Amino acid sequence: MFLCFASTKLEIMQQAIEFILEVEKLKTVTRKVKPLGLERYENSAEHSWQLCLFAYSLESYAAEPVNMNHVIRMLLVHDIGEIDTGDTMAFVEGGWVERKRDELAAVRRIFGILPADKAAELESLWQEFEAGETAEARFANAIDRAMPALLNLNNNGQSWKENGISYDRVVKRIRGQIEEGCPALWQYMEPRLAEAKERGFFGA
Amino acid sequence: MFLCFASTKLEIMQQAIEFILEVEKLKTVTRKVKPLGLERYENSAEHSWQLCLFAYSLESYAAEPVNMNHVIRMLLVHDIGEIDTGDTMAFVEGGWVERKRDELAAVRRIFGILPADKAAELESLWQEFEAGETAEARFANAIDRAMPALLNLNNNGQSWKENGISYDRVVKRIRGQIEEGCPALWQYMEPRLAEAKERGFFGA
Repeated sequence: MFLCFASTKLEIMQQAIEFILEVEKLKTVTRKVKPLGLERYENSAEHSWQLCLFAYSLESYAAEPVNMNHVIRMLLVHDIGEIDTGDTMAFVEGGWVERKRDELAAVRRIFGILPADKAAELESLWQEFEAGETAEARFANAIDRAMPALLNLNNNGQSWKENGISYDRVVKRIRGQIEEGCPALWQYMEPRLAEAKERGFFGA
Repeated sequence: MFLCFASTKLEIMQQAIEFILEVEKLKTVTRKVKPLGLERYENSAEHSWQLCLFAYSLESYAAEPVNMNHVIRMLLVHDIGEIDTGDTMAFVEGGWVERKRDELAAVRRIFGILPADKAAELESLWQEFEAGETAEARFANAIDRAMPALLNLNNNGQSWKENGISYDRVVKRIRGQIEEGCPALWQYMEPRLAEAKERGFFGA
């Protein structure tokens, strides 16, 4: 019995190591925006870290009271499906059903490296973020939509220009979720986006 | 009174935005190890994200029961002082008192952008990690010490070789904290480090 137990414990350790070396790959998934002051593109791992701190710092502005620990856990895992699918810019139109199906398969593969209880917990966090139906998920989605726009506002619209994204497409894509999850953040951003339009930060 | 309140709310929003654009700089702080499969060096932002998931996946191996939410919050902020000081490899000898003094000044400056209650909470997390005196801090420190070594074990000892770090120095530097915070992780790593020594993964 002791040997059996020891073997199982060792197996779980091996799973945790395999898991962390698999999620390591999120560092290789590049996004469309560049970190301020850098020439390289942002990756989805550092983006996920930043969202956790952004959510934390805006906690008092959530549309409804939120469990911040839960928000942070969702944000830590929300992009892990991109390890298999790559990042898709939020402004891409069409193909989202297929994309989300592929991301779900990816997170099931990756979270499934861990023991079943941990895997189920992580998939549940991922699904909750995607569904956007809880106060925590709405707030987390608002934070996720806002952050790249804030970087663009401080980066002369770098990724909007590079990808030919117009002011109208940006507003159409991000306004709903930001207003719903963190209305004060939208109030902050709206005049700044308008000013950015005047300053030519957007694509055609 | 209403105007006064509104102005304060706006001020807090401005502080949160300033804060997130300041911590943005952690993406520019490079470490000594390279992410697996990439030619660039890892940065402290993506490293912080990975530690959160590594801690989560090893939760059942903590030396004592830990509050995982608290561990995650510590790991999210533990490297923020590097924005002013840069990363120092764990194997550097000497100068740690001055370095930690400078990092403390840095986190006070950066966390101090936020309202006082948030700033105090973040500084307290940072101090707790540094002191390493709670179960959560001991576990978080074990995770922080182990992760770059695990990357090196899977990267032919890239940063050990590049920086001339010997097997003995690695073990001396990481063993105590890993054994203390997550003993099973050290049991996993010890034979692998010995094997890596045989395979020439270390510097002189």
